Amino acid sequence: MSSEHGTGRTDGAGHEAAAMRRALALAATPGVPLSPNPRVGCVLLADDGATVAEGFHRGAGTPHAEADALARAGAAARGTTAVVTLEPCNHTGRTGPCAQALVEAGVRRVVYAQSDPNPVARGGAETLRAAGLVVEAGLLEHDARALNRVWTLAVEHGRPFVTWKLAATLDGRSAAADGTSRWISGRASRRDVHRLRALADTVLVGTGTVAADDPALTVRDEQDRPLERQPLRAVMGESDLAPGRRVLDGSAETVHLRTRDPRAALAQLAGLERRHVFLEGGPRLAAAFVRAGLVDEIVAYVAPVLLGAGASAVGDLGISTVAAALRPVLTDVTVIEGVAGEQPDVRLTLVPAPLPAPRGSDHPEHPAEHPVDQPAAPPAPIPGGTR
Amino acid sequence: MSSEHGTGRTDGAGHEAAAMRRALALAATPGVPLSPNPRVGCVLLADDGATVAEGFHRGAGTPHAEADALARAGAAARGTTAVVTLEPCNHTGRTGPCAQALVEAGVRRVVYAQSDPNPVARGGAETLRAAGLVVEAGLLEHDARALNRVWTLAVEHGRPFVTWKLAATLDGRSAAADGTSRWISGRASRRDVHRLRALADTVLVGTGTVAADDPALTVRDEQDRPLERQPLRAVMGESDLAPGRRVLDGSAETVHLRTRDPRAALAQLAGLERRHVFLEGGPRLAAAFVRAGLVDEIVAYVAPVLLGAGASAVGDLGISTVAAALRPVLTDVTVIEGVAGEQPDVRLTLVPAPLPAPRGSDHPEHPAEHPVDQPAAPPAPIPGGTR
Repeated sequence: MSSEHGTGRTDGAGHEAAAMRRALALAATPGVPLSPNPRVGCVLLADDGATVAEGFHRGAGTPHAEADALARAGAAARGTTAVVTLEPCNHTGRTGPCAQALVEAGVRRVVYAQSDPNPVARGGAETLRAAGLVVEAGLLEHDARALNRVWTLAVEHGRPFVTWKLAATLDGRSAAADGTSRWISGRASRRDVHRLRALADTVLVGTGTVAADDPALTVRDEQDRPLERQPLRAVMGESDLAPGRRVLDGSAETVHLRTRDPRAALAQLAGLERRHVFLEGGPRLAAAFVRAGLVDEIVAYVAPVLLGAGASAVGDLGISTVAAALRPVLTDVTVIEGVAGEQPDVRLTLVPAPLPAPRGSDHPEHPAEHPVDQPAAPPAPIPGGTR
Repeated sequence: MSSEHGTGRTDGAGHEAAAMRRALALAATPGVPLSPNPRVGCVLLADDGATVAEGFHRGAGTPHAEADALARAGAAARGTTAVVTLEPCNHTGRTGPCAQALVEAGVRRVVYAQSDPNPVARGGAETLRAAGLVVEAGLLEHDARALNRVWTLAVEHGRPFVTWKLAATLDGRSAAADGTSRWISGRASRRDVHRLRALADTVLVGTGTVAADDPALTVRDEQDRPLERQPLRAVMGESDLAPGRRVLDGSAETVHLRTRDPRAALAQLAGLERRHVFLEGGPRLAAAFVRAGLVDEIVAYVAPVLLGAGASAVGDLGISTVAAALRPVLTDVTVIEGVAGEQPDVRLTLVPAPLPAPRGSDHPEHPAEHPVDQPAAPPAPIPGGTR
């Protein structure tokens, strides 16, 4: 029928958009520990829009989404359109290059959402075109970037994405005058923190926090049992870690980054294939990251508590006047309902504000005017971190 | 029919509950400036549940709700049931006692929601019973108290209800290191503050705020025009007000309370028939009210702004350890959407926590353990403040 074949191009595009949404859903399959790799999904479509095979990536060392789908399709892959959420890689890492695999399987056309930002892996589209395939880029690109926002930033900037977790009273305190701080946030917020830790691959604190609070920094479930997969525990600072500290208890990997420089610490973590750092303090360490423009997301738990005195939850940011205040963009406000009769807290999620339009500023070094990390030019590839 | 007459008692109760809901809605008629009086509604019901007349109170010096309904009913009031949101008054103030008026009109039965907490006006139920009327109290009492929560507290405690407005950054600052504070909250929040000022009858600041910021403290509409009805501007503190300050510009009434003691200031305002104080600072003044247990509601505007230094929005509360932290109850969280491209703020509303169960505390004077004002025993009547 003309509605099915005469306007095949249009129908094909419709099929392809639907297939891309399916590929995005496959990529987002929960429970797969993917770091340091991106989430990727792939759907192979026949000429009539029927699905020939589906695939998705399950984590480092396992087949890429395209390879997964091709393996399931077998000979039926010939002549299909591959709809994939990320530009097929051009790089032999733990697995072979997907671009070459698609060519060899006889795929006719490739539609992908996000171009590969990885300088080591990119170039797949050129390889495909050179082999005579039709290639289209950018379908649902925004959704694909959102799906892998952490990985994308990490690869583009050549350093891990940094989420700063902040817990404070309504009057901005993280401890009372006598130093006590247990507990300002409620149990439900503390559980929520464990949930977020589990989404990162690294939990980062300063040596001062280890000395003062001796945190375990492990991820525990609702019954307070440690999860099987634990993020790396990273402690930064030049002081030694005293023996017997809980971060040295062997319940998860721990690394001591002997530097006070946020950029140097992140470079070391990038070298360990870390993509997502969950920064838990203390206030001075976090302030150093903010001043360096190295915070990509703020998750702030505001407890309905007043202290009127005590340590500030946020250290000195080098800001002296309101016009220079940091104004990150509020992206979410959630009331974290209390459990066991406790009060709720309010969780605010914020991302750095886009850089203001240049105003002839003659203070380019002023940290308050550069709350956002700017991509290094060119971004340094993360060694060994290709997917 | 039996369903209408045979179970008349039950149907009557059903009619009365419906009438009480109607009376509450009448009482809540918006736009009526009622302070210092409570909101009251009244419905007169015939034996068959039909409404004979309705009335509500429109403000000091105008007829009470019962008188309003009786006037509308005329001779038809005889034999009716009066459903009224507040116990009919027993007191001759600007108008005559309602209890007597109901008796004289031949009302047979009176159902009211909230007992009159006003020591000068109470006793209406006894007067009615003594005259042979059937009286029932407590129908939808919770709703009636909620409708007049500010007035009820003011009358029960013999002092105005205090709403403390607080504006702070996410890190609890009310100004930057150089003292600048314009603007931390957005325009939409500042408009919201004007809306709340208009609901109070008094705006209170310290002499220090007048000296430092010279605020007008008037209520202005969205076009920045002053409203016709303005709350009293109250400035407390022992320093003189410098001539030329905006609070002395005559655009609204202003009173200078020459005391630093919150309780003394509220007593003076009670003497001026003030029921609702909107406390706007500064931080030390607000802290003095909190320490004295004289804050009944906190409205906190948290701006998604970081300063890292500068004045704290909340002054010293005399709290040194987390166990003694004030933990008011969060009753509302609202995102105040920004206007004119500005960011949203988050508004938290809180009320003091109920007093903890006694734990054998031997520090009854510790303010941190008494975040809630306790009713004075007996509450002092507000002179001239009867409705």
